[in-house]
Amino acid sequence: MSAARPPVLQPGATIGILGGGQLGRMLALAAAQLGFHCHVYAAEDADSPAFDVVQTWICAPYEDRAQLAGFADGVDLITYEFENVPAETVDFLAARRAVLPGPAVLARTQDRLIEKSFIAGLDIATAPFAAVSSPAELAAAADAIGLPAVLKTRRLGYDGKGQAMIPGNGDPLRAWDTLGRAPAILEGFVPFEREISAVVARSRDGHLQSFDIAENEHRDHILKLSRVPAAIAPNVAAQAHEIAARIANAFDYVGVLAVEMFVVREGSDTSVLVNEIAPRVHNSGHWTLDGCSVSQFEQHIRAVAGWPLAAPMRWADVEMTNLIGAEVHDYARWLGVPGAAVHLYGKDEARPGRKMGHVTRVLPRTL
Amino acid sequence: MSAARPPVLQPGATIGILGGGQLGRMLALAAAQLGFHCHVYAAEDADSPAFDVVQTWICAPYEDRAQLAGFADGVDLITYEFENVPAETVDFLAARRAVLPGPAVLARTQDRLIEKSFIAGLDIATAPFAAVSSPAELAAAADAIGLPAVLKTRRLGYDGKGQAMIPGNGDPLRAWDTLGRAPAILEGFVPFEREISAVVARSRDGHLQSFDIAENEHRDHILKLSRVPAAIAPNVAAQAHEIAARIANAFDYVGVLAVEMFVVREGSDTSVLVNEIAPRVHNSGHWTLDGCSVSQFEQHIRAVAGWPLAAPMRWADVEMTNLIGAEVHDYARWLGVPGAAVHLYGKDEARPGRKMGHVTRVLPRTL
Repeated sequence: MSAARPPVLQPGATIGILGGGQLGRMLALAAAQLGFHCHVYAAEDADSPAFDVVQTWICAPYEDRAQLAGFADGVDLITYEFENVPAETVDFLAARRAVLPGPAVLARTQDRLIEKSFIAGLDIATAPFAAVSSPAELAAAADAIGLPAVLKTRRLGYDGKGQAMIPGNGDPLRAWDTLGRAPAILEGFVPFEREISAVVARSRDGHLQSFDIAENEHRDHILKLSRVPAAIAPNVAAQAHEIAARIANAFDYVGVLAVEMFVVREGSDTSVLVNEIAPRVHNSGHWTLDGCSVSQFEQHIRAVAGWPLAAPMRWADVEMTNLIGAEVHDYARWLGVPGAAVHLYGKDEARPGRKMGHVTRVLPRTL
Repeated sequence: MSAARPPVLQPGATIGILGGGQLGRMLALAAAQLGFHCHVYAAEDADSPAFDVVQTWICAPYEDRAQLAGFADGVDLITYEFENVPAETVDFLAARRAVLPGPAVLARTQDRLIEKSFIAGLDIATAPFAAVSSPAELAAAADAIGLPAVLKTRRLGYDGKGQAMIPGNGDPLRAWDTLGRAPAILEGFVPFEREISAVVARSRDGHLQSFDIAENEHRDHILKLSRVPAAIAPNVAAQAHEIAARIANAFDYVGVLAVEMFVVREGSDTSVLVNEIAPRVHNSGHWTLDGCSVSQFEQHIRAVAGWPLAAPMRWADVEMTNLIGAEVHDYARWLGVPGAAVHLYGKDEARPGRKMGHVTRVLPRTL
């Protein structure tokens, strides 16, 4: 099914990007720096942020095989900015052009149950979880895991979508109703001390380069703030790096991968649980554009192109703040903040919950 | 003649860029980061590097008034990547849309005689110079200035084009013949200790932000290497900054301006002479993309947009190397150099003397 081994790209080659959001936009900007052309394929929104920084783009459904075939013909290899590209789309493309990271990665990360089972199979800790596909399974899962717990649809969840919190005295069935009784998993609620993420790049020949661990704050289930380095002990950071590396290796991954984790303290013990995997560049790695010698976007392009990875050097402590919805109107204030780098994604409508831009503050000790 | 005061741009506004080379490309990339769209207008080369990173571009002669008018109508303001846009083109555009830096700056920097006279009028030292428009003037100039000297056409010179060195025993008239007897200036040869450049940004409200002084090495009249900071005494750096600021203020300049200078030592005295002004982002400022909290390209966009400038913070010592002609094929070696950031401009043909890319090495003391 899969196409021939991907070629090592030469400058001037064309990289196809599936998805036209801000991640695709920043991937395209990084690819341009390295002398590549990009074609972007995105569904639904002719105003996609990534279209604005490339010469060639296609706005068509992911089921439009004629458009997909034309896209594949026009590029040297294909990557993606988000993990919810339909499997059929990726399979169709992969038969024509190399897709990196490989389609098998998507199959494992598009479904929370498969993803969690895969992680558990690597002997990596997660919150307790159980499959839910019937009222009886739901009741059994709630009994086994206990409440409070979180019910999540197996597919198509991001930024808190497809999730329902079930409080200690809540009704699991009512929660499942709010999710339309879609196939789901029930996850034990983890009283975490902090949320962190590891962003790691893996090259075609299996070399790994990790960025420093970020500490993340969410608001309304959307990432609001990342701080680097995370305020964690060196052994906890080492554990987080090791987990991300183990996952990347198990996937035989090529590109940038992010792993979101919880740091949990029980007495004097601290442990790290994996929350979820993003087989792509990740919001918690945006700080690398300004605070580091190489960005996650450039690392991803280097990896998929078959080029060597760079060894990241971080310049200082860093804080990344998302500009969500109307917060984008704060850009003018941010422009005057020392060490702040403002990134706006070129989206017209500042709808609530929409990621409109971000700001990285680089904080040398002298500031 | 000039249009109304330029508007303060909002994110989503469109900036027109005259010129489609690597400087225009990097300006467009910086504008995208800040949420702007760019239109590029360039003559002659449909493969211009800047076209590849924008949605809209025009490849047409600078004399095509219909195309120019359409370009002006489609943008909120206009800037440029090079100073040799014909004055008639700029005047035509400026009557329709604000052009920044202002057209008067171009008028003063397109002609070496006018430029040098302007600098001298500010009481800033230059090499001795004299106008040459006839054999008699040439003979008088050579007498007054002495040989060796450099004969330069008044217009359209860059990267050593339009220049002829006259050695101590040389024949000025023969040198002038090689330049087609175009109107020229004769400049005294300066036995400089080093070449430096000051890159400064000036906002619409007259605020200045300077980047650290770069030390430059040329090869075959083309910039090969810039090192930052320059190995000069603090008082020499202060003098260089002050000269650039004085020029920017005298122009009532808006945007990024570069001033190339010679450091000349006579006995224990060190003095700074201005060689030339570039009313634009400059090759010796490329290091700011990787070694600094804000790049010269972003500063230029901020300035012309009417936005506040950022205060640059340099992360470490920096060395920028141009990849000229076939040197671009070294990119693969550079990818593996610690702290090196590779920039390729997407040019197809690696002709001798053509700037194909550059590499910035950031050199923290720990490396």
